[in-house]
Order: sequence, then structure tokens, then C-alpha cells
Amino acid sequence: MKRWLINGVSAAQIDVNDRGFAYGDGLFETIAVRNGMLRFFGAHFARLVVSCRRLGMAVPEQDALAESAQQLCGSDREGTLKIIISRGVGERGYRPPVSVTPTCAIGFTPEPAPQIPHNGIRARVCATRISSNPATAGMKTLNRLEQVLARSEWDDPAIDEGIMRDSDGYLICGTQSNLFVVSGGRLWTPVLDQSGVHGIMRAQVLNLAEEQGIDCREQRFTLGALDEADDVFFTNARVGIWPVAGIDEHVYERHAITRQLMLGLAGRGVSECAD
Amino acid sequence: MKRWLINGVSAAQIDVNDRGFAYGDGLFETIAVRNGMLRFFGAHFARLVVSCRRLGMAVPEQDALAESAQQLCGSDREGTLKIIISRGVGERGYRPPVSVTPTCAIGFTPEPAPQIPHNGIRARVCATRISSNPATAGMKTLNRLEQVLARSEWDDPAIDEGIMRDSDGYLICGTQSNLFVVSGGRLWTPVLDQSGVHGIMRAQVLNLAEEQGIDCREQRFTLGALDEADDVFFTNARVGIWPVAGIDEHVYERHAITRQLMLGLAGRGVSECAD
Repeated sequence: MKRWLINGVSAAQIDVNDRGFAYGDGLFETIAVRNGMLRFFGAHFARLVVSCRRLGMAVPEQDALAESAQQLCGSDREGTLKIIISRGVGERGYRPPVSVTPTCAIGFTPEPAPQIPHNGIRARVCATRISSNPATAGMKTLNRLEQVLARSEWDDPAIDEGIMRDSDGYLICGTQSNLFVVSGGRLWTPVLDQSGVHGIMRAQVLNLAEEQGIDCREQRFTLGALDEADDVFFTNARVGIWPVAGIDEHVYERHAITRQLMLGLAGRGVSECAD
Repeated sequence: MKRWLINGVSAAQIDVNDRGFAYGDGLFETIAVRNGMLRFFGAHFARLVVSCRRLGMAVPEQDALAESAQQLCGSDREGTLKIIISRGVGERGYRPPVSVTPTCAIGFTPEPAPQIPHNGIRARVCATRISSNPATAGMKTLNRLEQVLARSEWDDPAIDEGIMRDSDGYLICGTQSNLFVVSGGRLWTPVLDQSGVHGIMRAQVLNLAEEQGIDCREQRFTLGALDEADDVFFTNARVGIWPVAGIDEHVYERHAITRQLMLGLAGRGVSECAD
């Protein structure tokens, strides 16, 4: 990110003994800044709180965090904000220090909202699997090496996203997104009790589907679901919905439900999804 | 660690955009410094090279790394050295930058060699599981949150180590060590093709067992093996062998093979293991 506030101070470096660096002992959030607002900040903060509690870390103070983030954005009205909360600085050893102050690093890059290709992106299925562990499932922890390895599998700029499966072959997510499949008028998205991240935009889409009367189920499904699907899309906090034109040899042309959900998101402030 | 050389310069901070901090995108080694020497440096370096290649990272230069490490130790003859190699500084996004220089952070804490309780330590079985993924198995990556959570499970200072199992219930390792079980005159240690770290001291013990004519097998085993075991021990680079007096309700009193291996290690320079 272009500029940072680290524990409230404008800085570009962190302590080399930070447990975020040593062990990935922490969490992060990536938030879209649109029209000068931190989009869905409340939902991002709520996820952060739940995750801090699961990791046994002190919970940041919401108003102070929001104020620091707004201060960092300054007069820039569009960009990407990243909040990293690590357990803090500690000596060697996995055991969390008895008394430790979390590190709060807030980064911001001013940049325009991404253009969503409304005809859809191209995606692929990654060979690198995502590991399963209920102890960390759902959280956006700083342990992201599997996503790095999955994203390293291709350098074709025409491919925007890769699908990750768990060791049993169940589809879990994109490398940087959540996955939805439309089939027979129904929406499916993977269950995330063993791996993956409870995405903020995923929750918006689940809620929107319910509001729009679309039957939406969290369930387990394998690659075969891509054969049978009418449509597939990814969600993430920066883009809202990424419609998918194709995944490897699969082609998707029926985007009716995806478009309906995109318009719904646009109505909730995800202007990238507007027509 | 008390003092650091970061990319060859005495420093205490790293760039907040380092991918080690953002994603745990890197590796580390913990090396015992004894009598002013970096113990088993060649083996640590070899593991680092293999792991860098697996992650698609540039391999550090051996002589330069050894020289920097020795420089950092200075006149201190006993201590713990940590080498962190991360992919380097990058912009947001999991994809490794096309052109990136790895960060090399070498830390050192002067401290006496640990005292090994020759009657054995106490251990427990952790509830937190270690996840399985052949893409990262065997490597000492910066993704260590599972070990942090496992080590957070207890604060009884009488318990020194915790055993971690995978999701199938197979024993994999200690939170900071490798695991060996002695049963019927044979030595078993977990297969590490799905998770765990290929420990430097583990390799020494495997080699030593072969030299001493002890039948040693890498295999999969569950908690039941602790019932049937005559003895159990952990290995790590700092202590050599940790004999085990008890794990939860299991008590181990027959340390003949463990002692034989400790003496063998002492003969290879692991002086902590001498009587």
C-alpha cells in the first residue's frame, strides 16, 4: 500500500520481532473506499472482532480504528484500505506473550474503483489445494501462503482468478474471492466450516439472494458442479461481483441471476456492479 | 531476537509491505550457536534452499549468509540464531511480483544452551490440529498460526510441549519439535508428506539410528501408539533430544534407546545431550 498508519503514526516499517512477520499471527481486512466512505466498514469490523476473539487477541476500538482509517484516506475518495491487526511484538516462541499490545497497521492506496468486465472474467482451476482446519476456517488470517502458491500457478493476464479446492476435491473459493454457482435457478456457495474466508461481499450476496427470493444454499460440491452450472461468479470486497465467462473449458453465457444480484449490490452502494 | 541484520544492515524494522508480514510468504530457520559455531548450518541451509525452490523464491548465497550470521553473533559463543527469508516487498495481491528481491532478516539472541531435564519433560496432546497440504508439508514456512494456537492451549509451566495431530488423528509433531516413539526396540516417527516440518535434528536422529543399528521407520500412527510406547521423545535444533517423562496420563520410564541416541547426538556436537 502507498501509505500507512502504524499504531496511529505515519510510518513505513514495523518491528522485525512482530509476530505477524514471524508467524503470520494476525488478521487483515481489505476495504473498498468509495466516495470517501469505507464501504461495509461495520461488517469488516465485526468480522475482525470475531476473529480477534477466536485468536485470543485484544479487540481494537471501533471508533478509533475508523477515525484512523479516515485520517489515512485524507482527501482521497477512491482507493483500497488494508487493516492488519497482528498479535504484536514478542520474543521467540509460538506461545503468545502474556502481556502484548496488538499491532494495528492501516494501509491505503488511492486508486479508481475497478472496472468489472460485464461479459465476465476468465478463471481456472488451481492445482494447489487449500488446507482444512476448523480452528482457522472463515478468518482472514495472515497465513496466506496457499493463496500465494495458487496465484503463482499462472501468469496469463487474460485469466483473472483461480478456483481452490480442499484435499477432498470440494470447491472452496477463488484465490482472492468467494465462489457462487448458479444451477437450475438456485444459488450454491461452498460451506466454509473447514477452510476459506467468510467474505464480506459473500454475506451481502447471501442476504440479497434471500431478499430477492433466490434459493441459496451453502453446501459442498466438487468440479462436477461447474459442468452442470448455468453460471458462476466470484465475490470480493473490492469488486462486488465478478461474473465469469469461462473456467478452463467451461463457458458460461446465462448471466441473468448474476446480473440481478449485481444490480441489487449496486443498490447497496457497490457502484462497480451497476450497468 | 535481541539484534538483527536485515539485508546486511543492522536494523530492527522491516518494510510494512514485506510479503512475510502480509501473507507469511517466506521461510525461517532457527539455529543453535554453540562454541561460536552455527550448529548444522549446512543442513539448515540445504533445507532453506529446497524450500526456496519449492516456493519459487531466489536462493540466498551460502557463504554470504554464513558470514552475515557469524558477523551478527560477534563475540557471543552461545545463543540462538534465526534466519528469515521472505519473498520480499510487494504491492497488494497474492501474486508474487515478477521482479522481487527476497528479504533476509537474521536475528540473534545470546543465551546459554538449554538444560535438558534428563528425567524427561512433561507433554500433552493438543486439541488444535495441524492441517494437511503436500504443497507446504515439510517446510518451515512463516505460516505458523496453527502452532501458535496449539501452544496457546496451556499455560502450566510444568508442561513443555504439546503433540499436534492432523485431521485424521495421526500424530505429526510437537508444536516446536519433531516426535519419535520407541516401541518394542523400534523407533517410529511420523511421515511428513502432508504436514509438519522436516526437522534438522530429526534427520540427525534418523541417521544416527541407522548408524546404531536401531530399526527406525517413518510411518503413520495415532494416539494409541502412546499407550503401547516404551518411550517417547521430541527433537529440535536448539535442544537436540527432549526425553519425555509423561504425556497426559501416560508415563515413560524406560529411556534406554533415547539415552543411547542422546549420547550419539552429543558425539555429533549436540553437547546439551551429553550426560
